[in-house]
Amino acid sequence: MKNYKRKNRLSANEYIDGILKGDRVLLSRAITIVESNLESDKELAKEIIKAILPNSGKSIRIGITGVPGVGKSTFIESFGKYLVTQGKRVAILSIDPSSQRSKGSILGDKTRMEELANMEEAYIRPSASGDTLGGVANKTGETMLLCEAAGYDVILIETVGVGQSETAVHGMTDFFLLLMLAGAGDELQGIKKGIMEMADMVVINKADGDNIRMSEMAKLQYQNALHIFPLAESGWSPVVSTASAIKDLGIDNVWDEVIKYKTLVDENGYFLKNRNHQQIQWMYNNINEELKQMFYGSENISNQLSGLEKDIVSSKISPVEASQKIIEEFKSSF
Amino acid sequence: MKNYKRKNRLSANEYIDGILKGDRVLLSRAITIVESNLESDKELAKEIIKAILPNSGKSIRIGITGVPGVGKSTFIESFGKYLVTQGKRVAILSIDPSSQRSKGSILGDKTRMEELANMEEAYIRPSASGDTLGGVANKTGETMLLCEAAGYDVILIETVGVGQSETAVHGMTDFFLLLMLAGAGDELQGIKKGIMEMADMVVINKADGDNIRMSEMAKLQYQNALHIFPLAESGWSPVVSTASAIKDLGIDNVWDEVIKYKTLVDENGYFLKNRNHQQIQWMYNNINEELKQMFYGSENISNQLSGLEKDIVSSKISPVEASQKIIEEFKSSF
Repeated sequence: MKNYKRKNRLSANEYIDGILKGDRVLLSRAITIVESNLESDKELAKEIIKAILPNSGKSIRIGITGVPGVGKSTFIESFGKYLVTQGKRVAILSIDPSSQRSKGSILGDKTRMEELANMEEAYIRPSASGDTLGGVANKTGETMLLCEAAGYDVILIETVGVGQSETAVHGMTDFFLLLMLAGAGDELQGIKKGIMEMADMVVINKADGDNIRMSEMAKLQYQNALHIFPLAESGWSPVVSTASAIKDLGIDNVWDEVIKYKTLVDENGYFLKNRNHQQIQWMYNNINEELKQMFYGSENISNQLSGLEKDIVSSKISPVEASQKIIEEFKSSF
Repeated sequence: MKNYKRKNRLSANEYIDGILKGDRVLLSRAITIVESNLESDKELAKEIIKAILPNSGKSIRIGITGVPGVGKSTFIESFGKYLVTQGKRVAILSIDPSSQRSKGSILGDKTRMEELANMEEAYIRPSASGDTLGGVANKTGETMLLCEAAGYDVILIETVGVGQSETAVHGMTDFFLLLMLAGAGDELQGIKKGIMEMADMVVINKADGDNIRMSEMAKLQYQNALHIFPLAESGWSPVVSTASAIKDLGIDNVWDEVIKYKTLVDENGYFLKNRNHQQIQWMYNNINEELKQMFYGSENISNQLSGLEKDIVSSKISPVEASQKIIEEFKSSF
């Protein structure tokens, strides 16, 4: 086997010290190690994560989603700059398992977030490329822990609003923000089912100029609509507001709502309960991914599955029998 | 090993012939075999299912849910009787993994559905008791196939509206009906997140007497609210109506909407596409359940998991490391 070990790696302690001191360069290099698929890096990553773990967890983690075109990066730039004026240190991460799309949007984001990117108090990190959503979620999750240990006290995790990644982001954040546009009623078609129900706050962006009236109407419509959802376990009723990220309007209000939320869930105990639940769930998600990988990763199994799919559709075999058959095969392969 | 084989079992062919002739007694006995956990019955069940499979699938499958108190069994009795007057043969199944609750409600339902239960064209079958949702879903799914092979052309599958079973029912039916009550705005709190988004139709039940005005208002509210959901892949926009099951009002309208839906999805190809998808998904759900069972069913593993959960919450180990550790352990146990 080829030795892939890179020459330019430091010792674990050097990364750890650097991160705890808030050194951005060492933070970035440590994230690269966490994202790496090299075997030698995996051990190093494990050591770094283990050491910084007690220093993680002290930020507020905000998930931000919305379909392309909603003005997400402009919003994040405006929101991020506002947070910096409030004395916060902000890290912006993204999660997007489709590497094609991520390469486009992330590089684009970084360019568009130019002002924020140049601030000492802000740290922008493009998405980890990865083959599976689980893999990307892991890396983004661990990157978040590193950023927290480096002293960033607000973590913004953005996702594209059209895939499964929202569930992953919702599962690793404290507050979930959905960006929307006012429109002709069909504006929601790009948003996947279930995402609306995750939102702690809906922000109608681009509420400026001729668009203000429509945005206010959309706000009312969403406010009414959100009433039909069951009360969340957090005890928080989702709020709807309008904003114009490009004009920096309504951005302070978003942060005010986050603070209100945080106060509520600190008081009622949901914050800690949810954090603990998320951490534990993270382990179980990984286990379940790994179990699937053991099974579906086998070429023999995956070849047979496509045959079974055809037989099921043509009523040659029942789904139950098909599953029994292939599980027996899997068990006998050990 | 003890021989659990029961003496009163017939041959597979006798059950198969009986089912295909629409013999209710043999249908019931075959369902008992499908529900049985005896090893000898499993082989027999497999043979029966395999034989009737080509004769299954010809019904319209309707999922019905709503919290306790919404008048579900009264609705099903009224709806079922109406379907019989339309020349339909109706089978009513239920899915409820919590056997405690199911024993209560099902026996209750059967008593309350007395008129329907006495009709030759209707067949009511209480829920299979089972340990896992996956197990119950399997049995209800196979029971559905048997009922279809016995000539029932409308299958109603009811569920209680407060648990996970809705996703299972949604995954095995063509049309999903949510029963609701008009109320003070908090009536939805019993309905789990995500269920609203599955509904092809929302029926506000108990719309009679003093309740009519409130029900009409609730109808409007839900109609507006449902607009915020993304368009379903079926191309169908969910409808909202009022009904009074106890007075047999608005019941015909429910069936009219089902017919409209069926016409639409037959024409646009979604009906067949969804059925095929559901059958294949059924296999994968079983496989994934079985994989989890292999892992979580191990006493050694489950003992370690609770320790790992504690270590995660106290930041002694990261979720990723914890999952790697236990998966290694699992792999080395083969």
